[in-house]
Amino acid sequence: MDAARLLMHDRGYSAIGVAEICEKADVRKGSFYYFFESKQALTVATLRAAWSQERSRWVELLDTGTGLEGLEALIQEQVQLQQDQQRSTGSVVGCLYGNLALETNASEQDLRDCLREIFDDQCQLVLESLLGATVTGPLGNQKATLDNARSVIAQLEGTVLLAKLYNDPSLLNPLWQQITGLLGVTSTRFNT
Amino acid sequence: MDAARLLMHDRGYSAIGVAEICEKADVRKGSFYYFFESKQALTVATLRAAWSQERSRWVELLDTGTGLEGLEALIQEQVQLQQDQQRSTGSVVGCLYGNLALETNASEQDLRDCLREIFDDQCQLVLESLLGATVTGPLGNQKATLDNARSVIAQLEGTVLLAKLYNDPSLLNPLWQQITGLLGVTSTRFNT
Repeated sequence: MDAARLLMHDRGYSAIGVAEICEKADVRKGSFYYFFESKQALTVATLRAAWSQERSRWVELLDTGTGLEGLEALIQEQVQLQQDQQRSTGSVVGCLYGNLALETNASEQDLRDCLREIFDDQCQLVLESLLGATVTGPLGNQKATLDNARSVIAQLEGTVLLAKLYNDPSLLNPLWQQITGLLGVTSTRFNT
Repeated sequence: MDAARLLMHDRGYSAIGVAEICEKADVRKGSFYYFFESKQALTVATLRAAWSQERSRWVELLDTGTGLEGLEALIQEQVQLQQDQQRSTGSVVGCLYGNLALETNASEQDLRDCLREIFDDQCQLVLESLLGATVTGPLGNQKATLDNARSVIAQLEGTVLLAKLYNDPSLLNPLWQQITGLLGVTSTRFNT
């Protein structure tokens, strides 16, 4: 699963075959098929494990402070992760889930369902954070909607897409400011 | 090139081989290599032709009216195209350039350069439209920046990514409203 995650994060789903995953993981193909029915089944297990781990961090960050500080901490960490990865590997690798989302179609239904669950969960976590920010003040009541939570995730994914294509993490620098614009928060208190 | 465009729009770059493209186009592999050095070379030619055609339509739409009406017309047509495609094929196929952008890495430099040129051009066209809107009124002077133009493209790409993953074009419905939020345009005059 670690081998699949690394290979797919860099080169996507279709470009990676079971043989290459086995080679990287130093296991035999026979062993692979003892544990996983297919590349798709391995990928679903890999994504679930990756998101389960990452989700804990999202919850931790979103619980930082009141208002929108949690969401800001989450976004800034995403920016930082892409910057760190570019420094250490030479490439902005982008978002594992986003990368695979654009590659799957109706023929890989299990993979698609898994990615939908992950993005559902991300949007829900952001929505909860927005709801909290309407209680504590910075966000107007009518702003805590699923559409707005989804637009935050869309802005993150779209900006990461461009940063990956240009291999330029500095494209992510204005992200938090843009998200406060999306949410209609004009106070610069949230742009530190 | 038509065959490559159709196949890759649906299933991406890595999943499609020269053999399948030739089969769909009803040509022999030998003929293929007479015209194109590689799958990558064909893809670059295909994307250039696609964008050249689409670019004329972008310019035409962006020239609609003054202020932000042109940008609104462009965004609404993108939404409409995804809706139409889902109705006719059963799938939200997403953005050809965005789909391929997340699949390429440093090993396909020509393809990457080509996609960068297309997104550069898109951001530049949006920037010119923003500059026009600061002259005619609806947009504040400091809003017509390349960062903001890029954030419009990012919101479009990110939202199309989610609409493709969920195969649900209705996720695109709030797009224009979100873009006006991003740009800090509060007037509902632009939300018709």
